[in-house]
Amino acid sequence: MTPERDVTPIAASSIASWDQEADVVIAGYGVAGAAAAVEAARSGADVLVLERTGSWGGAAAMAGGFIYLGGGTPLQKACGFTDSVENMAAFLNVAMGPGADEDRIADYCAGSVAHFEWLVGCGVPFKAEFFSEPGWEPMGDQGLMYSGGENAYPFNTIAAPAPRGHVPQMSNKKQGEASAGYMLMKPLVETAAAAGARALYDVRVQRLIVESDGRVVGIHARRYGNDIAVRARSGVVLATGSFAYNDAMVARYAPRIAGRPAASIEQHDGQAIRMAQALGADLAHMDATEVAIFIDPQQLVRGILVNGRGQRYVAEDTYPGRIGQLTLYQQDNVAYLIIDDDAQQEAMASWSPKFMLRPATWVADNVADLERDMGLAPGSLQATVAYNEAAARGEDPLLHKKPEWLKPIGSPLGAIDLRENTGGFTLGGLATTLDAAVLHVSGEPIPGLFAAGRSTAGLAAWGYASGVSLGDGSFYGRRAGRSAAKG
Amino acid sequence: MTPERDVTPIAASSIASWDQEADVVIAGYGVAGAAAAVEAARSGADVLVLERTGSWGGAAAMAGGFIYLGGGTPLQKACGFTDSVENMAAFLNVAMGPGADEDRIADYCAGSVAHFEWLVGCGVPFKAEFFSEPGWEPMGDQGLMYSGGENAYPFNTIAAPAPRGHVPQMSNKKQGEASAGYMLMKPLVETAAAAGARALYDVRVQRLIVESDGRVVGIHARRYGNDIAVRARSGVVLATGSFAYNDAMVARYAPRIAGRPAASIEQHDGQAIRMAQALGADLAHMDATEVAIFIDPQQLVRGILVNGRGQRYVAEDTYPGRIGQLTLYQQDNVAYLIIDDDAQQEAMASWSPKFMLRPATWVADNVADLERDMGLAPGSLQATVAYNEAAARGEDPLLHKKPEWLKPIGSPLGAIDLRENTGGFTLGGLATTLDAAVLHVSGEPIPGLFAAGRSTAGLAAWGYASGVSLGDGSFYGRRAGRSAAKG
Repeated sequence: MTPERDVTPIAASSIASWDQEADVVIAGYGVAGAAAAVEAARSGADVLVLERTGSWGGAAAMAGGFIYLGGGTPLQKACGFTDSVENMAAFLNVAMGPGADEDRIADYCAGSVAHFEWLVGCGVPFKAEFFSEPGWEPMGDQGLMYSGGENAYPFNTIAAPAPRGHVPQMSNKKQGEASAGYMLMKPLVETAAAAGARALYDVRVQRLIVESDGRVVGIHARRYGNDIAVRARSGVVLATGSFAYNDAMVARYAPRIAGRPAASIEQHDGQAIRMAQALGADLAHMDATEVAIFIDPQQLVRGILVNGRGQRYVAEDTYPGRIGQLTLYQQDNVAYLIIDDDAQQEAMASWSPKFMLRPATWVADNVADLERDMGLAPGSLQATVAYNEAAARGEDPLLHKKPEWLKPIGSPLGAIDLRENTGGFTLGGLATTLDAAVLHVSGEPIPGLFAAGRSTAGLAAWGYASGVSLGDGSFYGRRAGRSAAKG
Repeated sequence: MTPERDVTPIAASSIASWDQEADVVIAGYGVAGAAAAVEAARSGADVLVLERTGSWGGAAAMAGGFIYLGGGTPLQKACGFTDSVENMAAFLNVAMGPGADEDRIADYCAGSVAHFEWLVGCGVPFKAEFFSEPGWEPMGDQGLMYSGGENAYPFNTIAAPAPRGHVPQMSNKKQGEASAGYMLMKPLVETAAAAGARALYDVRVQRLIVESDGRVVGIHARRYGNDIAVRARSGVVLATGSFAYNDAMVARYAPRIAGRPAASIEQHDGQAIRMAQALGADLAHMDATEVAIFIDPQQLVRGILVNGRGQRYVAEDTYPGRIGQLTLYQQDNVAYLIIDDDAQQEAMASWSPKFMLRPATWVADNVADLERDMGLAPGSLQATVAYNEAAARGEDPLLHKKPEWLKPIGSPLGAIDLRENTGGFTLGGLATTLDAAVLHVSGEPIPGLFAAGRSTAGLAAWGYASGVSLGDGSFYGRRAGRSAAKG
């Protein structure tokens, strides 16, 4: 287990001298910290970013780079898609729940087009090309992709489908020299620096420094083995990311994801959450997690996915992260993909990245043999493969997979064992206002303390779509920067 | 939404005079508070219990009265059942998870027989008779019943089945003059009073009073419109129950149960949790909830339960609370009970309490018609009722319902609509040590502060069994009382 650390607040009166000082002090130089730095500096504040590692970037710089935006962005329009603020909100209110915060979603959707333009204004490049294949991310440098199952059942019955995964253009994807997340972070950090924001690296934030009236006025940190006290004349912004790598927190708040962190970085140890909790900060949706299922979507769409009872439970052509969540939380992390030889060959030949393609665990000449070899209840899988009859007509009355992916399961066939094949990161964190102020359990903001990114509860209450973390992280990061500059 | 209240700690230095004083001050006179009062008073402490309502009892006094105990209690033995500490722990480690705390479960199981004897020593009456029918609680004054699905699949494959729901004997059940929970609370409160514990009613606790070094030394409360300061010379015990009736907390921590509190009382507003959070207390398993499904188990066992895809998902003869949890969390709160006329008549004629018996929502002459009338996907329910073939042989290869309840579904038949027919209470709360000290997020106990009952995370991390709340509430309530008396 991660050892707990002393995060008790320090009284400002006990600080003999300050080692560093700025108007706005930001902990963490990932996407939320960078967005906060830009806006705080542009507001005229003297900004200092404290980053634990030797460089800016955080989890964002290693990510696929999706930013969830819509409501009719110039990129959506250029790719020929219609969207509206209301339509985007209708999707998110269902897809981010149960328990999604409608006020926050409405706020985010209303500001989404302007946020896209802000990113472009900071120099983030987007190529006006849509990527339509199943996959976790675009294969090339396309700028737009479905990233939350908007065009799949049930969401395509709730809101008009529109792709909202906006992906910064990579200069050199084939050689793997840059991720799309890097192409988001680089211009943001350059913009922050140009606006005057300073950064100090190798600084591990540890405790908040507070006045006797409860106002946060600084951060106590460690650097090269020394204690340093950093004064924030106007406000502190916490942006150190999730708690995916804090074993003790995961055990208490999100035990389903225990032992399976993915798409995260080890620096995501929940430190900002702990520091603010020590001041009485409230939390939200600490049990929510992103969940990836470790198989290529090119295979998923060509098979049928069944649970431990041999039953289908999700349209195989939806957002693979939704499949991951439903598998982990609703199917006890048990799933098998039933796929025939032809479909498997087709998936293998797809232009998908090969590292996620999986061989069959069991192969058989017919469904009855496969069912027996897998140890499923007699008749269970055979009843499920009655799917074939309607599939031959291009229909899927049970789960509404799109006709283009409907094809009877033939022989020979196989099953891919996907038990315990999920992983992900935590989505819950500090409860904040729409202005990114951290809320005390008494219901009022904690003076001087702001937060954004995955150390806060954002749009997601249980569900998720790729791009929501970089989306709400940058969106509310900006708010946090502006709010902290005002103080 | 519940308005948030100011729970900010008060500095002891600002208290001009104390209105009340005791060694141990306990907030809440439900089962945890009563158990704490007994043990603190028996330890020689001067004890004062602050209760918000006009009388002791809390949710416990209105409950069915199950206390989850085992490992070979005298009551289990008298009813002819064998159990062991290890066997009980093996069940709880699975049934209380995912994420259950093995150390706490081992501790609880090891002390379970002694805890039963302690309850008997306090005067809690138990009748050595086993109740074997399906139901939420015994129909008469029987003292023992299965209360967590121990004898049903899958738990009967994990540990040797033993009933552990210990129920205090009611003097006059038929007239409804007393609940079993009342028969638990009355002797505990009488024992506490005999040991010298005092109680003050109509006191609403509001904020903790702390020394500058962080030690909790009292409680600020309201009584008849006046502020009162209550000094705790040795320790404070928080035992005010769950947050099931705090809408804001439910929205942030357990949104699935929002709008559907059940088996709880309005005083369960999370106040103790909020007061301790304001001091930096850590939490655990805030998303966990007990979930009842509102139908008689006498009907459940005689039908087959299907989800919105017409698929079975749980053995219908297991603990009905487990059926409720799986329905709410894994089936999106959609369930239908398929039951034929004969079975429905049989259930109606059972000695079960009639108020939970439900009429069929749809009736039909055959499965195909019923499936169509219910709006299920064509063929889905018909495939599921292939259940009949194995059921006629006394087998249920899919879900292992016990042979005694296996009978082919005949005609005419019906379906009972159980969509959105669940409710329950919250199980998460303050993180505590096994000695009931409240843990700070830094990992150390908060000096002077103890807690037990449903304001704390107890045995349950996600799953539940009836009797776990009165069980861990009384067990760790005793610990809290002893720890607080030591200070």
